[in-house]
Amino acid sequence: MTTTFTTTRRIEFHETDLAGIVHFSNFYKYMEQAEHEYFRSLGLSISMHQDDGTIMGWPRVSASSSFEAPAFFEDVVEIKLYVVRVGVKSLNMEFEFFRENLRLARGRMKTVCCTFKRGDKMRSIEIPEEIRSRFVEVDSPLNKPGSGRGNDHA
Amino acid sequence: MTTTFTTTRRIEFHETDLAGIVHFSNFYKYMEQAEHEYFRSLGLSISMHQDDGTIMGWPRVSASSSFEAPAFFEDVVEIKLYVVRVGVKSLNMEFEFFRENLRLARGRMKTVCCTFKRGDKMRSIEIPEEIRSRFVEVDSPLNKPGSGRGNDHA
Amino acid sequence: MTTTFTTTRRIEFHETDLAGIVHFSNFYKYMEQAEHEYFRSLGLSISMHQDDGTIMGWPRVSASSSFEAPAFFEDVVEIKLYVVRVGVKSLNMEFEFFRENLRLARGRMKTVCCTFKRGDKMRSIEIPEEIRSRFVEVDSPLNKPGSGRGNDHA
Amino acid sequence: MTTTFTTTRRIEFHETDLAGIVHFSNFYKYMEQAEHEYFRSLGLSISMHQDDGTIMGWPRVSASSSFEAPAFFEDVVEIKLYVVRVGVKSLNMEFEFFRENLRLARGRMKTVCCTFKRGDKMRSIEIPEEIRSRFVEVDSPLNKPGSGRGNDHA
Repeated sequence: MTTTFTTTRRIEFHETDLAGIVHFSNFYKYMEQAEHEYFRSLGLSISMHQDDGTIMGWPRVSASSSFEAPAFFEDVVEIKLYVVRVGVKSLNMEFEFFRENLRLARGRMKTVCCTFKRGDKMRSIEIPEEIRSRFVEVDSPLNKPGSGRGNDHA
Repeated sequence: MTTTFTTTRRIEFHETDLAGIVHFSNFYKYMEQAEHEYFRSLGLSISMHQDDGTIMGWPRVSASSSFEAPAFFEDVVEIKLYVVRVGVKSLNMEFEFFRENLRLARGRMKTVCCTFKRGDKMRSIEIPEEIRSRFVEVDSPLNKPGSGRGNDHA
Repeated sequence: MTTTFTTTRRIEFHETDLAGIVHFSNFYKYMEQAEHEYFRSLGLSISMHQDDGTIMGWPRVSASSSFEAPAFFEDVVEIKLYVVRVGVKSLNMEFEFFRENLRLARGRMKTVCCTFKRGDKMRSIEIPEEIRSRFVEVDSPLNKPGSGRGNDHA
Repeated sequence: MTTTFTTTRRIEFHETDLAGIVHFSNFYKYMEQAEHEYFRSLGLSISMHQDDGTIMGWPRVSASSSFEAPAFFEDVVEIKLYVVRVGVKSLNMEFEFFRENLRLARGRMKTVCCTFKRGDKMRSIEIPEEIRSRFVEVDSPLNKPGSGRGNDHA
């Protein structure tokens, strides 16, 4: 059982901006893409129809990212996802983005388990045990000295 | 009663790409933005809740655009919308994009009037008379010689 | 030597809209993604640095798409690219989008071979023979009766 | 002299997702839009050509957002920008998003003043006095008790 999840993504032309680099707003989409791939790897979906007609989803409570080096068109970026805390209702994930050995960015995202009917208000719920048991907490890679792959990050 | 609808939009940084110009995919969003503003100007919305619990919407059947000159960051682009044909169930619109007197692009979009319940299949319907009466057909600006503002366009 | 190019793409959450389907503007990005993958498969890039310090690129002249069935979150969409005409300076491509056997959309895109220095105006050029020789023209799949995979399309 | 900058923005259809709300990644674009409007209001641009042929820009060091209530299609969202610290080379901004009296989200963004030639590496510089003098620091609205407009936020 692996304790981190890794995926890759090739930078597309429309994701770049006039500075010639990936626009920063895309990194939040990449975090979400990694999260969804991670869920699929566990046999889950980020949007699951329940027996009672409701949908179980995971809206974002917060998301942050810090940027260390730019990503360019056609780069193949490696995204590492770490589940650093499984709360009663929420999930705390951290992310690192790499191009080969260079760390490009780090991120954090907190989501909360909710059920709702289409068009109705979301209601947070305790993460069902059947789902909770699939997540494996790891130590935060962002709080440790010497994190990343050799980046000296204050 | 005006026979065309005009709106403006300032180009945002994230809409540019590494060529230093607006990425072409944004022009389709701009057409939709103009369409929605046009609907609001008629007292309509592109997504209207009906008395019977369904939603009336206007999904796209087709959309095309041709590009004559690039748009740049912070440009204020003028978008002109022309309703060129109100069909039984569909709406044919044409568009011109200008920066001052220079035409940047032209576009066409066909939408169809539909009703649906959330999560269900869309069903095309005849445009209700109460709505149809608000649209005013104009001649296509794209098929006429000397269209635009002096652009010599084959 | 294959005469069409095929790639796939999984629909991401941020590409959907409140109608629960992929927003139509994404299909133009998907066409471009397929074009760029096709170029890479030929040993080319859509943005190539030349010996004389200029960049060779392929700006879009026009792009159109028609929509036959919606695409949904997590769908794996197959994109087929056909080079239907290699002009002196331009490239005409057509596209079909499928989810399994159902055709979702068709598209057309015309690009033109250009060179430019960063920040300068683009200048169209004849496609260099070394590059032209890699493209293989095929018949248009969109103009033929019985095109697609059984869709009866007027 | 006002100590905060306020702008508004109407939510567009393509910014919503299948949950029927604005996709969270758009809030980072909205922060940037507000920042750029703020710069223009000061007679500046986020991308300024210098006398020596370089460009002065403000790449993002980090950006975060937390989400309190969803935004919907056609909502008019008010964005408040606060410059909370003008560093030697960097700018720290905070943001609040409102629909009428309801706070939807809060954000933080740190940018750094850089010069670069197109295609070259960015180099951070001290913010020129002529520019620095235009910014007015205000207290952080996010760290104070009773911030927002009545939201009780831990």
